[in-house]
Amino acid sequence: MIYEEKTVSSQEIYQGKIVTLKVDKVTLPDGKQAERELVLHPGGVGVVAVDEDGSVILVRQFRKPLEDAIYEIPAGKLDKGEDHRLCGIRELAEETGYRAEEFVYLGYIYPSPGFTDEVTHIYLATGLSQGECHPDEDEYLDVVRMPFEDAVTMVMENKINDAKTVAGILKAKNMLG
Amino acid sequence: MIYEEKTVSSQEIYQGKIVTLKVDKVTLPDGKQAERELVLHPGGVGVVAVDEDGSVILVRQFRKPLEDAIYEIPAGKLDKGEDHRLCGIRELAEETGYRAEEFVYLGYIYPSPGFTDEVTHIYLATGLSQGECHPDEDEYLDVVRMPFEDAVTMVMENKINDAKTVAGILKAKNMLG
Repeated sequence: MIYEEKTVSSQEIYQGKIVTLKVDKVTLPDGKQAERELVLHPGGVGVVAVDEDGSVILVRQFRKPLEDAIYEIPAGKLDKGEDHRLCGIRELAEETGYRAEEFVYLGYIYPSPGFTDEVTHIYLATGLSQGECHPDEDEYLDVVRMPFEDAVTMVMENKINDAKTVAGILKAKNMLG
Repeated sequence: MIYEEKTVSSQEIYQGKIVTLKVDKVTLPDGKQAERELVLHPGGVGVVAVDEDGSVILVRQFRKPLEDAIYEIPAGKLDKGEDHRLCGIRELAEETGYRAEEFVYLGYIYPSPGFTDEVTHIYLATGLSQGECHPDEDEYLDVVRMPFEDAVTMVMENKINDAKTVAGILKAKNMLG
């Protein structure tokens, strides 16, 4: 039986540019109360872009929380009210310069449902053509092109670890057979 | 070329039971400064547990940030200094009552590297036997057993959306063939 946690009170701790932190008091099924720390996030879109040669376009980007640069599919945050398909098209072009003829929805993931409402939509993009790229002002990244099967191997060998990238590549692999 | 973001200053905004929020000022390669909102998280472990009949053991749990109950592999947070294999064994037993003869490491994911340092390790557990389960005091969940292939179908049909569960099930699928 699935129960709900009713909100008794909600306190906003911090509103940043990207995340908002709230602490909610909730009532549990046994009547007791518990606290829930909630990080609100606008959500985003990631794109598994595969070219005519069967190569996938990844980006390598420094991530401050990890103090490391990791491989990811091109991705970005949703602007307020933005359609997630259009966001995917925009982010793919901004980060890599690629445009795609076909955009197929691979579904969404909840990166970490224990503490954040973040939702990441994932698309498979094919029929690529290259234009110029225009990353955001404070975004520095390398575009890396590799055979799709090499990316699958890197996922399986624990060398690609970003959740949306693991989910996107393995979903695409399972779909494409 | 991969660059780094040097920390100029770091401010702790909030220290909760689960997450800590920090805002860091960093220097970019062009010398300009930018702010990074960082959510520190202890990390966790998820377990893809498959029994002799080829069924996978999932849990369905209400997640306050989503205001919804979703399917997930059994999982939990790492205690400070805890070995992640032992954490997986502990969480599987606590949440589902199952113990496993074999625990195989499937790798780790970064759920959302743009803003959090959270790392989730994933194991494949087989050779299951059932004992009693002892969920945490404020944890209410349903244990759901279903054919492993049905779980793969639910992932592909966008009915299972939790990142560690999508990653774990598709990695296990790819490994088991």
